[in-house]
Formats: sequence, structure tokens, C-alpha cells
Amino acid sequence: MAELFHEIDHCVTAPQGFRAGTTACGIKSDAGIKDLAILVSDVPCTVGGVFTTHNLRAAPVLLCQERLQDGQGQAVVVNSGNANCATGEQGLHNAYRMTELAATKLGLAPELIFCSSTGIIGRQLPMEKLEAGIPQIELSSEYGDAFAEAIMTTDTRPKRLALEFEIEGQAVRLGGVTKGAGMIRPNMATMLSYLTTDVAVERAWLQQELRDAVNDSYNMVSVDGDMSTNDTCLIFANGLAGNTPLNAQHPDAETFRQALRYITCYLAREMARDGEGATKLQTIHVRGARDKADAVLAARSLTRSPLWQCALAGGDPNWGRIAAAAGSSGCEFDQNAFDIFIGETQIAAKGMAIDYDQDQAHAAMAGDEVLITIDLHLGNGEATAWGCDLTHGYIDENSLYTR
Amino acid sequence: MAELFHEIDHCVTAPQGFRAGTTACGIKSDAGIKDLAILVSDVPCTVGGVFTTHNLRAAPVLLCQERLQDGQGQAVVVNSGNANCATGEQGLHNAYRMTELAATKLGLAPELIFCSSTGIIGRQLPMEKLEAGIPQIELSSEYGDAFAEAIMTTDTRPKRLALEFEIEGQAVRLGGVTKGAGMIRPNMATMLSYLTTDVAVERAWLQQELRDAVNDSYNMVSVDGDMSTNDTCLIFANGLAGNTPLNAQHPDAETFRQALRYITCYLAREMARDGEGATKLQTIHVRGARDKADAVLAARSLTRSPLWQCALAGGDPNWGRIAAAAGSSGCEFDQNAFDIFIGETQIAAKGMAIDYDQDQAHAAMAGDEVLITIDLHLGNGEATAWGCDLTHGYIDENSLYTR
Repeated sequence: MAELFHEIDHCVTAPQGFRAGTTACGIKSDAGIKDLAILVSDVPCTVGGVFTTHNLRAAPVLLCQERLQDGQGQAVVVNSGNANCATGEQGLHNAYRMTELAATKLGLAPELIFCSSTGIIGRQLPMEKLEAGIPQIELSSEYGDAFAEAIMTTDTRPKRLALEFEIEGQAVRLGGVTKGAGMIRPNMATMLSYLTTDVAVERAWLQQELRDAVNDSYNMVSVDGDMSTNDTCLIFANGLAGNTPLNAQHPDAETFRQALRYITCYLAREMARDGEGATKLQTIHVRGARDKADAVLAARSLTRSPLWQCALAGGDPNWGRIAAAAGSSGCEFDQNAFDIFIGETQIAAKGMAIDYDQDQAHAAMAGDEVLITIDLHLGNGEATAWGCDLTHGYIDENSLYTR
Repeated sequence: MAELFHEIDHCVTAPQGFRAGTTACGIKSDAGIKDLAILVSDVPCTVGGVFTTHNLRAAPVLLCQERLQDGQGQAVVVNSGNANCATGEQGLHNAYRMTELAATKLGLAPELIFCSSTGIIGRQLPMEKLEAGIPQIELSSEYGDAFAEAIMTTDTRPKRLALEFEIEGQAVRLGGVTKGAGMIRPNMATMLSYLTTDVAVERAWLQQELRDAVNDSYNMVSVDGDMSTNDTCLIFANGLAGNTPLNAQHPDAETFRQALRYITCYLAREMARDGEGATKLQTIHVRGARDKADAVLAARSLTRSPLWQCALAGGDPNWGRIAAAAGSSGCEFDQNAFDIFIGETQIAAKGMAIDYDQDQAHAAMAGDEVLITIDLHLGNGEATAWGCDLTHGYIDENSLYTR
């Protein structure tokens, strides 16, 4: 991490004026598992948001997109265990009702409340459980970590981070959480992510910076190539730091941008590392592409290739599968030009195998983090993507089924 | 099968004037496993061909594409165990050398010989094994079945078929073989396929009909979404039936077209059924799409969704994953309009769950063939795709690795 910022505790409740709370309302079948959460600011926030581009969009996504139009908000209520997707008019009604329940609980106008749902597709939300659960939630500025846990589905661990840095010479904070695990592919990666900050930020610039940061982080993650119906990333900026609102001209804009990118890239990596069944995190760095868009295609292609993901699981430096995935990605590709590195070891040069140190290559495949670098030798485009291996665990997670 | 044609034995050597032969030359590590094969016609043929669209194209594909330019050919020599891909100038030289060896063996000009290779990417062909093996091959019109076996890689069984039907009132034949199993995705599905016929066919019409048949068959198969570097489909028409060469105006053109489509669709289904680790064949039928291209997108999307493939493996009628895959395919999609059927049982109507007979739905998921029908209610576009489930077997096949 650059010395511009340092990590602090409490993730989304680290910035001034944010509180969170959770409860187990029984939507998930396992009794006592937290499945309902609220994140709220003491004062209205400027809000930015990025959502799934899926043609099947869950009711809470439709609600968020509508409410984002005026760029204001103060809270989000989230349940896990049910995605409220493919639920028709009733589902949309239930999403609105969910925000009304939170509004009553918080003493706010419903229009200031966003909502998200994650879990199984195609079943109506059990509204009686939400009606009973939302009033029970106890809010605290120390409950950010619990919020990160309550939004998990098949995640094995929460993903959360907060940074402290300076704007106009004064300490400010940015926090974030995300959930991931399955149905993970750009655009966006399947996930819910919430970011909070006490920095004052102009709305248009906040939205643009969020979109750019998401493109280079969450949208560069794939677990299984399955795009989700519920992807949501929201940022709440409550301005309690009292700075002149940030925009592109502000002298500290770059600091905020770097902090935002640090958090979103960290959370993206953690999501890939905790993919369903994953035993290895892979980072794919493509350089020398014709342009950035081509680099993105090539880098993502490895994260979505079951054949390469299996080789990764087995620790097999099978560069033929790397080349096959990159070459079929749609990027410009000269089959007599590309180089491939596993870790620090070059495996292929000018499209062909070279003599390499086999012990070094095997060692680079053996750990729980594997770095692949592809140089296409066609231009200056670069991109980094993150993914994981494909294991029995993924299949068990998604095929074991009891009527 | 329509009564227009009936099945006969010997697949690619069923048509008059075709012979095949195989040997075990030791390219595959397992001694004694057939890995080298020749298919030859007694007389020159009109040849049609369709190849991978991958940007990393194996040397034999480059050779075939060059030799197809004059539309003439008489034989193909094929090895398994090594793909001769990502092998540079040396690889291209070896592909030409492979056809020279076959030409010497057969007493033909090298320009009339095509070649294919399938197996691992990134290693040079062991030419000394080909030099020793090709002269050993014994050719016979009864060895079509052995040819189908020699081109297998991780296939568990050969895929082959021949049909007899009438052109100008006289019995003619069309035979085909294919290999599949892994790295299987359009365009084309990863595969080698060879078709033979004694029917005389005009070159341009043969090429067009082959391309159309491949689009509706091999290009509608996916095992793992990984596109191959070596896909090759060749058809050899030697004209020994003595008919007026077929073209679009010939009164029996439709009979030939139906026979070609019957064989390619049969082989496509068999390839999906024998996908690496597969326990179930799935057939996806999409109707009511805006147009055929949209139907193709939606149908293929299910064959490439690991999440749905896992549900299929588990016998789980998880229609939310079906809807999520179809909705993210890029086809036009009205989330309040689509219907989903599993077998004969309707599971979703107008984008939402309906009360359905659970026993019936579970029974429809339980067998080794599962039919999914999606009606998008947006137009008249239809398409059918084939795929398989995702199991531990796929992962074991592709991740177990010994240095």
C-alpha cells in the first residue's frame, strides 16, 4: 500500500457518521445465521451506484436504479438467502416494502433507502420474516464487521477493508465490504458491495470514479463465468469530513481515487480467492495488447476457462491451455509473438515452448496464489484480472441437492 | 429417422471407394493404443471443410485451409496424442512432412492429402514415430470403425454413423466420424470430424451445405466453453455413384441435405453425451426468440453455464439458473414473458415460478437425457443446442497431474 493511506478497523462503519446492524430473521434455512442487515448514515449522502447488466434484473436492482436517479440516499437494507429475482410485480412490491420497513425503523423517508437481496432465484421474499426482523436490528458504529458477515451467501469469510487518508490536510476514511463466491462474472461480477466515506464528493464525479474503479476491480473477477442477476455496488459519501466537495479539479482528488481503487481491488481479489471451492487465487496480467480493451478480453479469458482452471487446481503449468484461452478471447493475437510467464519463469516465447526451469515453474504453480503474465507484443494495452481454480468443491457446492 | 434413409455399418468406409487404416505408433504414452490413421478414396474427391475460428490455429489447420482452396483432395492422415499447435515454423514443416509420408504410402501427390492432429498443445510432433508408423498402416474398406477409434483422445467411445439413401433412384451412402470430449465449444466445437460420400456433389454447393450443417450441429455443442485450436471438419465426395453432381437445383438435393444434417446432428449429440466427465446429455430447445441468432445465443448459454451444469449433475430443477443463463446470453429477453419447461413439465410462466408437479419435474431431471425448453415469447426464432453436466469427472480428467 502506498503511504498515502493506512488500514483501519470496522470497514463500512469506520467513516464518521455510519452505523450498521444485523439480525438472523430466518430467511436462510439454518437457524441463527445472520441474513438481514442495515447500513445507515446519520445524515443524507451523495450516492453512486453500478449494477448488473443482466437482462434478468432482480427487483432490488430495479429499485436501486430508480432511486439512484436523484443521487441521494442515507441507508441500505440487505437480506441474504433469497435474491428476490424472477419474482414479477410481487417481487417489486416486496422490495419497496422492504425499504418502507427500514424507513420506519430508521425514521427516514423511504426514498432515501436502497435495498439488496442475494440468494436463490425465483422465490418470493418471506415478508413476514422481514417485518419481524427489521425492527430488531441494533445499530452501532462498531458493527461494520457484522454487516460484512450478514451479507455472505456461500462465502467462507467476509471481505472488508477501511482506509484512513488525508483530504485538505485532515484525516478522512473510506470503507468497503463485498460478498461473492458463486455466479461470479463481469459485468458486474456477481456481488453486492457497499462503500462508505465521510468525504464530501460531488455526485457526478463520485459516480464516474465509482464506475471506473469497478471496471478495473469487480468487473475483472470471474469465478465461474456465470453473470448474476443481482450485482449491486453502492457508495455513500456523507460529507461529515467537511471538506470542499471533491471533483476532478480538487487537488486531493487523486488521493481519494487511489483509496477507492485500493479498496475495490483488494475486495475483488478477496472475492476471487474465496470463489466457491477455490483453493488458489490466480492473478492474470496481460501486457503488450493492442489496447486496453484487448488486454481485458485476454486477461478475463483465463479466469473463465474451465480447462485452465482445472490445470491451476492441479498445479500443472499447462501453458497450452493459457495460450488457447487467450487466443480465443477475441483479442488481436499473433500466434508467433506471445510470451507467457508463470510467476517469474518464462514458459513460452514467440508462441512456442522454451527450455525453462521446471522446478521454478512448478513451485510457482504450487502455492495458493499464482501469477500469470502474458505479453502479446502488439501494443501498450495492459489489464489485470483475478480468478480461482475449479475444484470438486465448486461442483459439490452447486450440485448437491436434496429435494 | 425419416424413411428417406437407413443406417448401415462401417461409417466413413461405407460409401464406395473409401478405405481406412490405423496403427499404434507410440505418440500416446500408453503403448499399443491406436494414435495414427489414414482415410483415403480410390479416386480424387470434391472436398469441403470448416475449421476453428480460434486465433491460435494449429499447423494442420493452416495446411488444410491452404489445400482446401482448390477444393480437391483424396485422403486425410490424422494423429492423436499431440495437437501440433503452438509449434511455429517447425510445426508447419512437420504437418507438410506428415502429408508427404502419407502421399508416399498411398502413391498420391501430397497436394491431395489433408492432415489433422489432436492432443496436447505446445509440443513438436515426434516425427520419427510418424515416419515409422505411416508405412505400417493397412487399409481396408472395413476399417471405418477402427478409424473412428484411432482419432479419439479423452473420448470414452467412438462416434460414427453411415446412412444409405437414394439419389437419382440409386442407392448412395454418406458416412461420418467425430471425436470430441474436452475443449469443446463453438465455433467450432472442439473436434475432428470426417465425412465421406460416393455421391457426386458440386464443390460450391458442398461447401455451403457443410457449413450450414455444421452451424446447426457441431457449432451447437459445448462441453466446457473452451474453444479449440484444432477444430476441423472435412467432407470427401468421390462421385463414384455416378450421379449428375448435386447442386441446389438438383431434385435430390434435399435428400442429401437431410442425410448430412442427420449425421452431423447425431454426431454432435454423441459428442455432448461423451463430454469429459459427463453423466447426462442435455438438449436445450429455445423457441419464441426474436430471431434465430438470438435463439442460438440463449440455447448455447445453458450449455456453457457451470452453475446450471452443476444443477444438471445433481438432478436439481433449478430454473432460476436456467433463467439467469439465458438472460445473460445477450439475446433479447423480457423478464416478464419467458416460459421454461423441464421435459414436458412447465416450471416457470411469464418469468415466474408456477405450481408444477414436482415428481414429474424431478423425474425429467433424473435420467441420462434431459430436455429443457425455453419460450421467450418475442418472435419466431428457434434453435437447439446440446451439452452435458459438470462433474468431478471433468475436473479429474483435467487437473490430475503428475510431473
